[in-house]
Amino acid sequence: MRLAVIPGDGIGPEVVAEGLKVLREIAPDIESTPYDLGAMRWQRTGELLPDTVVEELRQHDAILLGAIGDPSVPPGILERGLLLRLRFELDHHVNLRPAKLYDGVTSPLADPGPIDMLCVREGTEGPYVGNGGVLRKDTPHEVATEVSLNTAFGVERVVRYAFERAVARPRKHLTLIHKTNVLTHAGGLWSRTVEEVAAEFPEVTVAYQHVDAASMFFITDPGRYDVIVTDNLFGDIVTDIAAAVTGGIGLAASGNLDASGTNPSMFEPVHGSAPDIAGQGIADPTATVLSVGLLLEHLGRTDQAKKVNAAVAFDLSTRSPQGPVRTAEVGDRLAALAGG
Amino acid sequence: MRLAVIPGDGIGPEVVAEGLKVLREIAPDIESTPYDLGAMRWQRTGELLPDTVVEELRQHDAILLGAIGDPSVPPGILERGLLLRLRFELDHHVNLRPAKLYDGVTSPLADPGPIDMLCVREGTEGPYVGNGGVLRKDTPHEVATEVSLNTAFGVERVVRYAFERAVARPRKHLTLIHKTNVLTHAGGLWSRTVEEVAAEFPEVTVAYQHVDAASMFFITDPGRYDVIVTDNLFGDIVTDIAAAVTGGIGLAASGNLDASGTNPSMFEPVHGSAPDIAGQGIADPTATVLSVGLLLEHLGRTDQAKKVNAAVAFDLSTRSPQGPVRTAEVGDRLAALAGG
Ligand SMILES: CC(C)[C@H](C(=O)O)[C@@H](O)C(=O)O
Ligand SMILES: CC(C)[C@H](C(=O)O)[C@@H](O)C(=O)O
Repeated sequence: MRLAVIPGDGIGPEVVAEGLKVLREIAPDIESTPYDLGAMRWQRTGELLPDTVVEELRQHDAILLGAIGDPSVPPGILERGLLLRLRFELDHHVNLRPAKLYDGVTSPLADPGPIDMLCVREGTEGPYVGNGGVLRKDTPHEVATEVSLNTAFGVERVVRYAFERAVARPRKHLTLIHKTNVLTHAGGLWSRTVEEVAAEFPEVTVAYQHVDAASMFFITDPGRYDVIVTDNLFGDIVTDIAAAVTGGIGLAASGNLDASGTNPSMFEPVHGSAPDIAGQGIADPTATVLSVGLLLEHLGRTDQAKKVNAAVAFDLSTRSPQGPVRTAEVGDRLAALAGG
Repeated sequence: MRLAVIPGDGIGPEVVAEGLKVLREIAPDIESTPYDLGAMRWQRTGELLPDTVVEELRQHDAILLGAIGDPSVPPGILERGLLLRLRFELDHHVNLRPAKLYDGVTSPLADPGPIDMLCVREGTEGPYVGNGGVLRKDTPHEVATEVSLNTAFGVERVVRYAFERAVARPRKHLTLIHKTNVLTHAGGLWSRTVEEVAAEFPEVTVAYQHVDAASMFFITDPGRYDVIVTDNLFGDIVTDIAAAVTGGIGLAASGNLDASGTNPSMFEPVHGSAPDIAGQGIADPTATVLSVGLLLEHLGRTDQAKKVNAAVAFDLSTRSPQGPVRTAEVGDRLAALAGG
């Protein structure tokens, strides 16, 4: 098994080092190859993601990414040219984001109750396609457009994936989040697709919520959600809300999956490069370790994935709440727990 | 002064009755004319918003709306044909949504701190324009698009309005919320416009946040916000988060303003028609009364607006927390407090 590793910028290399520590402990047979991509490479060489690198990445079984981004780079360059380009080139149409409130973790909610949801965010369509433009830039007559593209092919495969995950979970419940009352064209396609695929999964109960209402329920009643399926942009927003109510992005893991298996899937913590705390050894590597858990699960190494998740769950339940984090210590503890 | 009143569906007529009770007490000179629009009229006659009604509405100084919507109507019909059509016909480019945590109100957050923000949501552009379509509907090759339209004219006027509000507040702070790293075309226009208008308001400090990050900060640190300016769709989402953390949409008021004064502005509670509790006299009319406060302020009746807001603030501070609400009793109390 071959893993490509993109440590990236800021705290990326620090948290990835701990993720790999855990991985080496539990799956020493996985060979990893580092790839130097991100803000620093762009600053140095002007390169974002050379085609040859994309081809090399394709030769791997999976990818682990730390974080990409630096305030010195104008918005959009690294996102469109590297992060999103990876998702599009490798057809990462399922952006998988579990949100679980672990024992011992403090939620900002007064009365969160149990939270255990799995967000399935579409990853290759919607307003993320980069379609749109600017007319008469920098004049009083400027017009800027963004086009959300949604295809039956693209929506159906992610909806189907979400139903497959829902039917395998105890509650077997799926919620579509969209804004069908305003975005009637895209919303119609999403609703009809969910309706059609639902017919193949009679055990799964289905709910629909507008994204604005859902954003409230994530705060007032997050326990109602099991599996969520939603579009790329709505998914970006609601998964961050889900992360916030389950203890913050320090704990939020994600997988960018090509569910067809054609291309390697990519696993990454949801947090960014956090340049303000980079280099101090105080970044929480837990989200990266949980992403390693998702990676192992995706590779069919269910037992190894369970060990990683159990190690995280145990460690979180015994951490001193709000205590300071030392990146390497957390990694050491998680590696020992997962391996032992 | 002439007020058009659209009670609408579900709890709409119930809460509007209380809003008018307060208004009559405090501003008996305002004449109100009811307009029958909404799901019931559509069911009965097939009419959503006849052109003649739009023309009549234009003859008023302001509009008070309760709520529109019924589960019997397919999504999009009332929204696009009535609610949004009103906003577009009457050029309601400023969608004003204050979010304040009043004393005595329970927030779902464990440690909310003081919250007092003013969201200025654009109301006539972005993904709400209804531009887009469907190709090869109901086939495996279906493509659905939604086009977000953003113009220098449209962005500049709402950004300018937001700066004017910010400079008049003690903290003089303004946050732009967008997704400039992905929606680079529209995001560029928004960022550049904020930068340009900021030069005219040197006293105002300016911040920028991506909508996903902001959605988290609304939960983990809502006190950091003063005035917010954002696009139509992001505003739809973040104002509901703001409402959730300040005690729910039962308290969220809004104004749809034509800030140029050409057309009457429209004031409405953010909540929907809540058909599940309609007719029982248990809907909370507070958001409608606060919307009446916004209406009075907009008409330049500052003292009357202050009385309404003070009545609500006092009443909320003395309500039994989580106690049941009787619509008419709340209206009676607020009218007495505001008038007395
Ligand atoms: C960095 C950005 C392009 C990205 C996104 O919007 O998808 C991030 O917010 C995420 O959620 O992974
Ligand atoms: C009902 C709907 C069209 C509307 C919107 O999306 O603007 C509502 O959610 C609101 O926020 O006023």
